[in-house]
Amino acid sequence: MSEKKLLVKGGQLVSETGIIPGDLLIEGERIKAQGLKGAFDNINVDEVVDASGKYVLPGLVDPHVHLDSPFMGTVTVHDYNSGTIAAAYGGTTTVISFSTQPKGGSLLENLEQTEKKARDQAYIDWSLHGILLDAGPKTLTEIPKLVEAGVPSYKCFTTYRHADRLMDDDSILKLLEVTAEVGGILMVHCENDTILEYYLRKELARGHFSPIYHARTRPPSAENIAIQRIIDLMKEVVAKVYIVHTSTAESVEIIQSARVQGLPIHSETCPHYLTLTEKELEGENGQFFICSPPLRVERDIEALWIGLANGCVETVGSDDAGVSPQDNLRLAQGRFDKVPSGMSGIEPRLSILYTEGVCKGKIDLPKLVSVTSTAPAKIFGLYPQKGHLGAGADADVVIYDPEPEWVMSAKNHHMNTDFSPFEGFKIKGKVESVLCRGSFVIRDGALVGKAGHGKRIFRRL
Amino acid sequence: MSEKKLLVKGGQLVSETGIIPGDLLIEGERIKAQGLKGAFDNINVDEVVDASGKYVLPGLVDPHVHLDSPFMGTVTVHDYNSGTIAAAYGGTTTVISFSTQPKGGSLLENLEQTEKKARDQAYIDWSLHGILLDAGPKTLTEIPKLVEAGVPSYKCFTTYRHADRLMDDDSILKLLEVTAEVGGILMVHCENDTILEYYLRKELARGHFSPIYHARTRPPSAENIAIQRIIDLMKEVVAKVYIVHTSTAESVEIIQSARVQGLPIHSETCPHYLTLTEKELEGENGQFFICSPPLRVERDIEALWIGLANGCVETVGSDDAGVSPQDNLRLAQGRFDKVPSGMSGIEPRLSILYTEGVCKGKIDLPKLVSVTSTAPAKIFGLYPQKGHLGAGADADVVIYDPEPEWVMSAKNHHMNTDFSPFEGFKIKGKVESVLCRGSFVIRDGALVGKAGHGKRIFRRL
Amino acid sequence: MSEKKLLVKGGQLVSETGIIPGDLLIEGERIKAQGLKGAFDNINVDEVVDASGKYVLPGLVDPHVHLDSPFMGTVTVHDYNSGTIAAAYGGTTTVISFSTQPKGGSLLENLEQTEKKARDQAYIDWSLHGILLDAGPKTLTEIPKLVEAGVPSYKCFTTYRHADRLMDDDSILKLLEVTAEVGGILMVHCENDTILEYYLRKELARGHFSPIYHARTRPPSAENIAIQRIIDLMKEVVAKVYIVHTSTAESVEIIQSARVQGLPIHSETCPHYLTLTEKELEGENGQFFICSPPLRVERDIEALWIGLANGCVETVGSDDAGVSPQDNLRLAQGRFDKVPSGMSGIEPRLSILYTEGVCKGKIDLPKLVSVTSTAPAKIFGLYPQKGHLGAGADADVVIYDPEPEWVMSAKNHHMNTDFSPFEGFKIKGKVESVLCRGSFVIRDGALVGKAGHGKRIFRRL
Amino acid sequence: MSEKKLLVKGGQLVSETGIIPGDLLIEGERIKAQGLKGAFDNINVDEVVDASGKYVLPGLVDPHVHLDSPFMGTVTVHDYNSGTIAAAYGGTTTVISFSTQPKGGSLLENLEQTEKKARDQAYIDWSLHGILLDAGPKTLTEIPKLVEAGVPSYKCFTTYRHADRLMDDDSILKLLEVTAEVGGILMVHCENDTILEYYLRKELARGHFSPIYHARTRPPSAENIAIQRIIDLMKEVVAKVYIVHTSTAESVEIIQSARVQGLPIHSETCPHYLTLTEKELEGENGQFFICSPPLRVERDIEALWIGLANGCVETVGSDDAGVSPQDNLRLAQGRFDKVPSGMSGIEPRLSILYTEGVCKGKIDLPKLVSVTSTAPAKIFGLYPQKGHLGAGADADVVIYDPEPEWVMSAKNHHMNTDFSPFEGFKIKGKVESVLCRGSFVIRDGALVGKAGHGKRIFRRL
Repeated sequence: MSEKKLLVKGGQLVSETGIIPGDLLIEGERIKAQGLKGAFDNINVDEVVDASGKYVLPGLVDPHVHLDSPFMGTVTVHDYNSGTIAAAYGGTTTVISFSTQPKGGSLLENLEQTEKKARDQAYIDWSLHGILLDAGPKTLTEIPKLVEAGVPSYKCFTTYRHADRLMDDDSILKLLEVTAEVGGILMVHCENDTILEYYLRKELARGHFSPIYHARTRPPSAENIAIQRIIDLMKEVVAKVYIVHTSTAESVEIIQSARVQGLPIHSETCPHYLTLTEKELEGENGQFFICSPPLRVERDIEALWIGLANGCVETVGSDDAGVSPQDNLRLAQGRFDKVPSGMSGIEPRLSILYTEGVCKGKIDLPKLVSVTSTAPAKIFGLYPQKGHLGAGADADVVIYDPEPEWVMSAKNHHMNTDFSPFEGFKIKGKVESVLCRGSFVIRDGALVGKAGHGKRIFRRL
Repeated sequence: MSEKKLLVKGGQLVSETGIIPGDLLIEGERIKAQGLKGAFDNINVDEVVDASGKYVLPGLVDPHVHLDSPFMGTVTVHDYNSGTIAAAYGGTTTVISFSTQPKGGSLLENLEQTEKKARDQAYIDWSLHGILLDAGPKTLTEIPKLVEAGVPSYKCFTTYRHADRLMDDDSILKLLEVTAEVGGILMVHCENDTILEYYLRKELARGHFSPIYHARTRPPSAENIAIQRIIDLMKEVVAKVYIVHTSTAESVEIIQSARVQGLPIHSETCPHYLTLTEKELEGENGQFFICSPPLRVERDIEALWIGLANGCVETVGSDDAGVSPQDNLRLAQGRFDKVPSGMSGIEPRLSILYTEGVCKGKIDLPKLVSVTSTAPAKIFGLYPQKGHLGAGADADVVIYDPEPEWVMSAKNHHMNTDFSPFEGFKIKGKVESVLCRGSFVIRDGALVGKAGHGKRIFRRL
Repeated sequence: MSEKKLLVKGGQLVSETGIIPGDLLIEGERIKAQGLKGAFDNINVDEVVDASGKYVLPGLVDPHVHLDSPFMGTVTVHDYNSGTIAAAYGGTTTVISFSTQPKGGSLLENLEQTEKKARDQAYIDWSLHGILLDAGPKTLTEIPKLVEAGVPSYKCFTTYRHADRLMDDDSILKLLEVTAEVGGILMVHCENDTILEYYLRKELARGHFSPIYHARTRPPSAENIAIQRIIDLMKEVVAKVYIVHTSTAESVEIIQSARVQGLPIHSETCPHYLTLTEKELEGENGQFFICSPPLRVERDIEALWIGLANGCVETVGSDDAGVSPQDNLRLAQGRFDKVPSGMSGIEPRLSILYTEGVCKGKIDLPKLVSVTSTAPAKIFGLYPQKGHLGAGADADVVIYDPEPEWVMSAKNHHMNTDFSPFEGFKIKGKVESVLCRGSFVIRDGALVGKAGHGKRIFRRL
Repeated sequence: MSEKKLLVKGGQLVSETGIIPGDLLIEGERIKAQGLKGAFDNINVDEVVDASGKYVLPGLVDPHVHLDSPFMGTVTVHDYNSGTIAAAYGGTTTVISFSTQPKGGSLLENLEQTEKKARDQAYIDWSLHGILLDAGPKTLTEIPKLVEAGVPSYKCFTTYRHADRLMDDDSILKLLEVTAEVGGILMVHCENDTILEYYLRKELARGHFSPIYHARTRPPSAENIAIQRIIDLMKEVVAKVYIVHTSTAESVEIIQSARVQGLPIHSETCPHYLTLTEKELEGENGQFFICSPPLRVERDIEALWIGLANGCVETVGSDDAGVSPQDNLRLAQGRFDKVPSGMSGIEPRLSILYTEGVCKGKIDLPKLVSVTSTAPAKIFGLYPQKGHLGAGADADVVIYDPEPEWVMSAKNHHMNTDFSPFEGFKIKGKVESVLCRGSFVIRDGALVGKAGHGKRIFRRL
């Protein structure tokens, strides 16, 4: 029985290396060929999708989302169902979420449980990173198995001592050792906990509880130092590292300087660090803008855009981790340090980057594709199955119409929350259609996919 | 009348972003489509080229060759005929050579003369950079016309005062200004002339004439400082710059540090700086290894490979500029400072980088394609016509067989000289066939192209 | 015949290493002994000066004044008479002024002329630096003679092309060479002329003539780059260098970083760079605040004070070079670029540094003595004859009363001008008495010295 | 009853600022006056010491010795008796040793016990630093009392976890906080413990037990990183810090760069880091050269001398901490990691620095006085009582004869051990006489002082 043939015709094909007018021939779940406009006109296809005047992108890969994640007494708003719907609306066709090691327990078991919860829920493909709480013998023994199980990436923290997540030098070095051995990649949330605790203690003692003190107690130095320390240890034990959600101007230089010396370090930032400043914390909805690291200042925004443009910052993940505004308020009771930190952003990644980055001349469209799709796919072992718009790749395709102009709002987004960090942003362009492995998930702006279409992707580096 | 259809089938298609098994459909001079293995089996083609077990690369672009160039009383060994033949044997399908402004004269006129000489000579495509000798009003007025004439790149020197090529701060700044205005790119040969002259004077006074003093009188500091000074000026007037033939470890850091600050600076190194050290200058054929900047030491080689791997050094050009050994000896008369500096290297770029880089794990094959083809094409305005292996690009294709092992020698190369800088290098793999705009230039290792097939490419940034 | 004996008794003796209560025994022109309070009570002296409650400092050395100096069509307000009077009022007992090489002429001849003009004029001791306009063979031959003639220090410029003073790399390197040979010290005014000219051209073309554009057209980068370039050349030819009037935050780091590598580089700042910002240029008297380099911003002021405190900036010279306000206005005719740049500041160095530095906790009193007296004396070959408050030194002594509080003004200063850059500054403490080689020049606040007491000091490094 | 008067006559008086021929008048325990040669000839004195042709220095201050210190199952060879005898022979008149907090116990009690042991033992003056094992509430409460008790300096470690001395970020930050409050100074032994443990584990596993592996397992990076981390924390909480025994080239730059930013950081090196390399560890007596940080390489030696010369490294302490060769061998049993690390060096500091530093042109004599006497006195609150050769200071005086040439050896030193790290060094000059508070301890090379003359010095910053 022959597979369905689809021709995406007449668009501007955007890859990380350039933009070329052309046609895409899809057969079943994969791209069969990429050709000049008209190249496949003589081939019989089941359906032709007209992409004239549109950009055709590889489906976005979101390397950093927290779906269905218990957190500080509540749970993130997005599960594998609602989260993948919102993601698809935003042009994302693969998300990598997390499976968390229970304290002292088995990450492999948690993987199974996570898989059970996610099964039949997802509209788009998904994959998993691990989250490590310790670097004890049990954990170190489990990591090779984790890698074999298709999870070659796992995150640790240099902070959150109260949540029992803090890793010290010894732990980090052990994780680097095992990572080097098994060929995995260690993801690190970098903020120096001693510095955070110092300022937290100080400001709370002064009776400072308002949201802006979230930023005051998590200074850029805490992030910069924590990154430098990971690099210090990488110089002793060379292993792949991925610094999640970098937010400071200095981080760009620190990481690039490590790379110049040949260290295999990768880094990510997020749409909110590229567009919002700590001033949001002083506004009416200040506490909904609490995330860690905190929003910074204009100077950091500029440096991060330059970092994206010149390759110093390689990916943009959403770090979607919001809880509901109701939970936020209930748990915080007016104290910034009680807010479950994190924002929802799984949907707007593409439109924000297109509007704020491409239209404002900070990055070009191939770079947008790189940072949101190709680079994460490569770093995390999904490429060229994902993040690629060429023959052999999964037929994950986004058709983006650059013409529409609209205003982003919690009222028109598809995320499972009535708060949008980007409320009021004027947006250029819109996701028109999204294919995941050859099937439409979004078509002409409407959800047409179904739960369960999304499959778990097992990865290998 | 329909164009000839050619199918390159069963190879590993290598682009700067990855390696994918697949087929290439060529129609006339262009690539019509890229597809999965077998994707075009139902299409009638005129000819099928079997690439099974071979790598299929976009034709190499050599951004830096000096064809038919008068120099210190002689002329370089390669003209547009012999040079493009040797280039083709090495997998190169486009070279960018130079047209030099006569002292006080018109670069545009020289362009015409160069074109005349080159016409009907070349086996592969070629394009031109300018070489500027001054930044006087006449020159500054000519640059916009140069850009309009398809020559948006032009080189200047921070040294060679005796050849009347030295540009001081004022000149460089003026060139940056006009470059910013017209959207061109300024190429700079960076060695601080004052430092060179100081050491030259000193060593000659001491009666030091042997080739190693070429390196002793052109220390790394001279190069590093000259690069830093260009960057200093770029901070005042932001314009695109391309640093040719960087050779030092420090240059990598200096340039990358400028990029982190957002400056549009590009850089190149050459195969000889990646594989040879100044020790060659102390050998029997020492004076044939004289080039500027000079060969350096192991530490520089390591840093340059790391720089290529991590994107800090973006291109590898040959800087083919050798004169014949006979001329070298005749003109030098035993004095290193009388040697016409420069080596022939237009042919071995691909095989050297594959053997020393890819096979030794220093770079991967997509990176090789990037630095020798895609990146130079992008930087100099040839992309995606050149440097690209996808639909719409010129059908410039290299089929590289990774299996053969052989020893490089002046006896088996095709360059017009009986000296090879890489004499005795054990090489892995060999260029099997080369297509330039759909026509075979090299087929199964033999020259089948013809003079005049190569066309001049007019560029636009 | 025995010499006059004087006992300075009961004061706080301040040296660059500390503050100790004690007595000074002076015999004739020199300090004979320094002892505990009462140590010399049994010795017969001709006179006892009570310094109870006062600080006793070594006489200040001003390493940078321009007395009787022709400049842009006028002459500086201070000659050897009026200048040394004002200096003495401010606690200075030695000034080093300049003798300028006539274009293409002999510096040695100018030295003689300068000496003639100065003879019998000075109230305090004086010495001379040379100013070099070129590095031609004649100049290079004269430098060793200059050093023999007691002038081992000479200044050159990286700017002022219109005044024929610009030295390029070649010239600087030659000066470093000869300086290394003769054991002299090269002083350099560091501002990159190309950058200055670029901005000057730009702003004048825009019709910007007001004083603030003096700062806008001489950006910190011009100074920083020029300093870095001197250091670049010092790495090739190691010779002593003294960077005059540094004004930027970055300069401190650049120079210190050279020192960490062992380079013999010294640096100076001035009272105005430590207290005033470019905002003065926007005020009513803006054009009287024009000096080169220009006044900078708060951040630079902070860095310079830290630099003084930690030894990175070693001296504070006045760079007294003001012309009369009348001349300033007449010559400028409303254009900042026509103002003879320079301010008068030969008098207030001590009181400004005491008030703004010591009283505000930025430096301590021993450091004040170091930067205004001991360090310049050491660097320029006057130590321990000058800059020292111990046995054997010239009896150059300042008695400073820390109690008085007063307001600095052109109305109460003794400089030969009705403009004071420090108008309105609230000052703590006052120079009470000043001895130069054992003789009172200032006594209880009144001038008691006489013209001709001051002798030329021939220096040797 | 009048005090004894002593005249030190005709010598070259060396202070940190210069060398001046002159006489010293001593009355009782203090210097009464410093004068020109002959200045005090009319004064009746009890004794005249002829210092013609000799250097007269302030008595040396050794800021870092471990007297009578229990260590890894034995005790250091020098107690307050034998240690101060050897120190005096070497020109030292004040030592600062340590009182160690018992694990979980009171440092104040240990101070009392230490004082008891030391009382009536010392030939020269002595003072105490504390050693902290933890930063618990009890310790933090005791520090202000320690400061009041005349011990404003206390050391902590970033290593030695097995000896329960390791301080983590939290501990260091708390110590900085309390240090800032009480105006003390925190001394830190900087080596990153995680890195040391990593290499130790690795090399032991490979069966590497010979002394050179002491250096291999304690790489420069461990020291550099540890210093950088202290600086990172100082940027959050500014407090005075003193880095003990720096040994690497990089440390000089790291520390100086912190100073340029205004941080109050001081640093020390030791004679062995200035003269010996890790090659000693490969010699016959290799294991006697084990100290921490380990001996480094030539490049570090060069950088440390430059650092001393330019003020980046401020002091040279002996870190005298040797155990007997017998104990060394007995405890190690052939394993480098079981050697009680530390060498004896309380005596040779002056002669080694004079010979290797002054005579070889690396530092001048005033700088020698600064780093071995004045600077430690100032940093630790002994100045101007100690470290000063002027009126009012304690009459601690060294007469150094520059003429003798001799060979250093365990056979001729006065340290209580038959091993000398400097065995065979050819030495220029010799300590002739030493006065401590006006009394001879060493006279014409012979010990004439007595136990108990040395008094404890209570310090205040």
